Amino acid sequence: MSKFSILSLVLFFAVFVGCNKKDSKSGGAFSSSVAERTYVAPGEHDEFYAFLSGGFSGQMSVYGLPSGRLLKVIPVFSQDAEKGWGYNEETKPMLNTSFGFVPWDDSHHPDLSQTNGELDGRWAFINGNNTPRVARVSLETFETEEILEIPFTAGNHASTFVTENTEYLVGATRFSIPINDEDMSIEEYKSNFKGAISFVSIDQEHGHMDLAFQIHTPGYNFDLSHPGRGKSHGWFFFTTYNTEEAHTLLEVNASQNDKDYIVAVNWKKAEEYIKEGKFTVKKAEYAHNLYDEETHTAVSTMKNEVKVLDSNLPGLMYLLPTPKSPHGCDVDPSGEYIVGNGKLAADLTVHSFDKMLKAIEAKKFVGESYGIPILDYDEVVAGVVKQPGLGPLHTEFDGKGNAYTTFFISSEVVKWKLGTWEVVDRQPTFYSPGHLMIPGGNSQKPFGKYLIAMNKITKDRYLPTGPEMNHSAQLFDISGEKMELLSDFPTIGEPHYAAGIPSEKITGKSKKIYNISDNKHPYATTAANQARVERKGNDVHIYMTMIRSNFSPDNIEGIRLGDTVYFHVTNLEQDFDVPHGFSMMGANNAEILVMPGQTETLVWTPKKAGVWPFYCTDFCSALHQEMQGYIRVSPQGSNVPLAWSLGEPVKTAEQHR
Amino acid sequence: MSKFSILSLVLFFAVFVGCNKKDSKSGGAFSSSVAERTYVAPGEHDEFYAFLSGGFSGQMSVYGLPSGRLLKVIPVFSQDAEKGWGYNEETKPMLNTSFGFVPWDDSHHPDLSQTNGELDGRWAFINGNNTPRVARVSLETFETEEILEIPFTAGNHASTFVTENTEYLVGATRFSIPINDEDMSIEEYKSNFKGAISFVSIDQEHGHMDLAFQIHTPGYNFDLSHPGRGKSHGWFFFTTYNTEEAHTLLEVNASQNDKDYIVAVNWKKAEEYIKEGKFTVKKAEYAHNLYDEETHTAVSTMKNEVKVLDSNLPGLMYLLPTPKSPHGCDVDPSGEYIVGNGKLAADLTVHSFDKMLKAIEAKKFVGESYGIPILDYDEVVAGVVKQPGLGPLHTEFDGKGNAYTTFFISSEVVKWKLGTWEVVDRQPTFYSPGHLMIPGGNSQKPFGKYLIAMNKITKDRYLPTGPEMNHSAQLFDISGEKMELLSDFPTIGEPHYAAGIPSEKITGKSKKIYNISDNKHPYATTAANQARVERKGNDVHIYMTMIRSNFSPDNIEGIRLGDTVYFHVTNLEQDFDVPHGFSMMGANNAEILVMPGQTETLVWTPKKAGVWPFYCTDFCSALHQEMQGYIRVSPQGSNVPLAWSLGEPVKTAEQHR
Repeated sequence: MSKFSILSLVLFFAVFVGCNKKDSKSGGAFSSSVAERTYVAPGEHDEFYAFLSGGFSGQMSVYGLPSGRLLKVIPVFSQDAEKGWGYNEETKPMLNTSFGFVPWDDSHHPDLSQTNGELDGRWAFINGNNTPRVARVSLETFETEEILEIPFTAGNHASTFVTENTEYLVGATRFSIPINDEDMSIEEYKSNFKGAISFVSIDQEHGHMDLAFQIHTPGYNFDLSHPGRGKSHGWFFFTTYNTEEAHTLLEVNASQNDKDYIVAVNWKKAEEYIKEGKFTVKKAEYAHNLYDEETHTAVSTMKNEVKVLDSNLPGLMYLLPTPKSPHGCDVDPSGEYIVGNGKLAADLTVHSFDKMLKAIEAKKFVGESYGIPILDYDEVVAGVVKQPGLGPLHTEFDGKGNAYTTFFISSEVVKWKLGTWEVVDRQPTFYSPGHLMIPGGNSQKPFGKYLIAMNKITKDRYLPTGPEMNHSAQLFDISGEKMELLSDFPTIGEPHYAAGIPSEKITGKSKKIYNISDNKHPYATTAANQARVERKGNDVHIYMTMIRSNFSPDNIEGIRLGDTVYFHVTNLEQDFDVPHGFSMMGANNAEILVMPGQTETLVWTPKKAGVWPFYCTDFCSALHQEMQGYIRVSPQGSNVPLAWSLGEPVKTAEQHR
Repeated sequence: MSKFSILSLVLFFAVFVGCNKKDSKSGGAFSSSVAERTYVAPGEHDEFYAFLSGGFSGQMSVYGLPSGRLLKVIPVFSQDAEKGWGYNEETKPMLNTSFGFVPWDDSHHPDLSQTNGELDGRWAFINGNNTPRVARVSLETFETEEILEIPFTAGNHASTFVTENTEYLVGATRFSIPINDEDMSIEEYKSNFKGAISFVSIDQEHGHMDLAFQIHTPGYNFDLSHPGRGKSHGWFFFTTYNTEEAHTLLEVNASQNDKDYIVAVNWKKAEEYIKEGKFTVKKAEYAHNLYDEETHTAVSTMKNEVKVLDSNLPGLMYLLPTPKSPHGCDVDPSGEYIVGNGKLAADLTVHSFDKMLKAIEAKKFVGESYGIPILDYDEVVAGVVKQPGLGPLHTEFDGKGNAYTTFFISSEVVKWKLGTWEVVDRQPTFYSPGHLMIPGGNSQKPFGKYLIAMNKITKDRYLPTGPEMNHSAQLFDISGEKMELLSDFPTIGEPHYAAGIPSEKITGKSKKIYNISDNKHPYATTAANQARVERKGNDVHIYMTMIRSNFSPDNIEGIRLGDTVYFHVTNLEQDFDVPHGFSMMGANNAEILVMPGQTETLVWTPKKAGVWPFYCTDFCSALHQEMQGYIRVSPQGSNVPLAWSLGEPVKTAEQHR
């Protein structure tokens, strides 16, 4: 659709929705009704949580639906000065990788834990696409608790989708590479560059992630994936593009084949092979970063080997030909239909799981690729949606037999029927939607009330903000026969994907505070009268407490240039939503923001002699402005004794006794 | 108000607004009317821009009103992985200070440029409270263009309010310090620790900031400030607390005096003193960071001296006694009334500018503090608002004779009349508002339609997100006699303050793209056929272009371990809202996000030999997934020649000619 057509549609739509249409339910103006349906009155709560990836922000954003309000940005893969994430000593190890400290990633696809194919509200997962990683976020604390690097992989795009009992989440290579880091010319790509599909197991008690095994594959670009469910539980499906194995000017050279593949992986079979020892162990260094709940600190350990299966092991993997450079790989709630969103294809292709099993049984193969059987397209296709739009990217389901697909080029969401493949509705989006989300859409039980389209191009949708505009989401009501556009809301970074869940699956277990008596941080100070300062050579450890509205200690002397000062700051509050912040003038380390009952550490290397203030950075009470202190830094060689104040003149350790 | 009372109010309010009250205008349910009034239909635009400080995020957030939608987060004082701010080579110098690179600050008080006392939509300013700095943001590009460090200052809180022709913005010390960095005991605070008030001049053509002069003052804590306007133009008013000059346990020790001071500074008189040479020049190192529009790069220079005036120069400064630990210092649109929001005072104190002038003329002094005359309270007070609430923090004005004050402890906004001092309305807020904002409230011409309260405590206002909740803003309609609560919306970081402006003052001049022909970046590549790679010793410079949907070059060989690789990436697009991103696997430097017509530089130090992909991180077209490339890193000492591909096999420089 041309820009002109898009603009016409905007104008048409604005007039149509704003002025004419009546809402039969309330008798009022349609716009009033729409306004009401997105409005969450002060003090009332949204119906759904929506977890949107941050894309190039590297984080995960939490929105409420239907209001579109940004409830929180959860720091995951990127440093976040707001929360001290990746700056304080407790969280720095979370951003460690085999490449060292990596301050950023490109987060792509959140998914939510499931039990028996239904959302269970335990964890959210999200992948890092650039430095290949996957992360787990607790839905009790809304904090990132674990990050695992994925070896032998470049561009971990087809991630983090989970199986229906959260047995595994997956990762897969987007940019195939010479998998043993060999010094190989890029010109030798074909046949030599390889991909990897990773199965990461999830410990059901704590959620801990472990790289169970990898399958090393031909050098396709893996794009997206979805688990089988119900009858197809035990299988996982991945879209590929660049089955041409091109390595330059991919926009042309990877768009040659009429069909690429959906790769079907039988992971139950993979488990058997692993059990039978039919794997090789490959050496690879990759980081596993785990937040320890006991000590409120993170530990990064380096792992060094992976169990690898060959992709041509019998029965492990099959290729379903799918037109053309498919992006989304979406499995319907029944587990029968696998939608290949061929972004350059005229039609939308839907494969049948039952037909696939039969075709495998009957060996309906049309060839093989690097030893992997290629199934006969005609034997596996369930149907096609004929010319539904241009540039399909992603399909979700409402649990009522309908599917919804985004079309990037024709800028629309199209609703169609599973089984009959007929288009039953289409609504324009503004502009160029990438992905869409229906809460529970990747499960056996979607909640088909709302749909959000995540649009890639914003242009005139909001007040201008210079050359850069926030990306735009659009909320649709899909409870009726026709989709209704309710609202536009701007988003953080670039939401590539989202996962939604009814709020009641989370709210009851949301953690309010950290119990101070459970604080096992090695430098915790759990009562103000235990606050103190200790020197160990050139390291000075300050055991500090915060409570409305003072620091203990609040005056410190006897620091010398050349010292490294560790502020170990414990928030003694035991009241919900009373964090304290701590900042130190000129610190090269951002600030820290400490939740009730927690301890965090800020390291400061004074640059100049003098007296420097510190203060609370989170307005905590009517006397927050008074929550401050001073630290005196003397020149090197000074004999000012170490001394501190607990609301009185400074005293030495001896005098404090 | 107790927690219980607050909760009762919530319940009462929810029931009252949600169910019972009728709206007389539409005849519909009240809630429907309210919903409509905050609803901005898809494709329509908000009426106002609101610039909210990020507090401990260090940034500035741009919201639309009445929708409460987050239009953009403008990176200012903190690194921002999302936009590459403080990570790419072009913006790293913006975060330089006399303490070195500081990755974070605590941004507090945005203000907007004015002409003749009215908002003009040229620039926004904001202060860093921790590492004392002020910043200027262009309202054409919504980018930070300049950051100036403030010397002799710790905690630059009473900033960045501007005079009515944007002649100056101010800064002032919150935490007085031994001003020459002497190695002095904190116990010697009284009389020895000093404050500083800074006047930063603004060049009217480019907005460039310069520290015109400072006034060094007694060791009070300066809190907030506002300029005189109209008849009081030429004066600036600052609240102080801790006139007790306490240095420990300030919540007790700085709350002793019944009255602290509002400091009135005659800056026209200061200008005379400067002209007459009645200043001393003090040595101090402070950074001035300027974004060069020609080259799209930032330069940090270190300044080294300041002109300093003594605070007891005749006629320069007067002290207006003001109960008790006043926070906000607010001047009404006429310039006559100066409101001191005494956070521990029973009443709200309003001083009269006319009375102040008369009292100065008649020498109605009751004493002096460090040589500065203290005016007789009774001679300067215009009136008091009797027991309006508990814990007043900040007052704004609607231009119709009304003032609105936030009360932190009693959690409400109170509307009262200038001149009669009578309370005319009060509305509860949820919970504990710090500041409030009426667009244009700090000018001669407020736009008295909306008010937002920025609340410090959130608790149950939104779906829970673990121990940490986003802070909450509330939007009121103040166009009628009574304030009406319209909506709650969560905010980023901690908005301490905000400034709002009607959208039409900005939209017309908002920049859409950077003209590629104006790109004077030293490493720009303004056409794809000029893309190339150059080695200079161990530095490799890659002159790269991006356009939908490919990189030139897209395959690069001949890099060796030990090299430092500079990707100078130019976005050739000349279409609005088509940024491209660029990321490199394992880079320790975040990514870059390049706007149309711009060049940015990412530095990469390869850690391992192998072939590593790079790709576009901002979904730019239907073939965005294909926008990728590879870089081959060979071991040290390798003789693989430097070669690159422009969509064909790699060639050396020689072969490319």
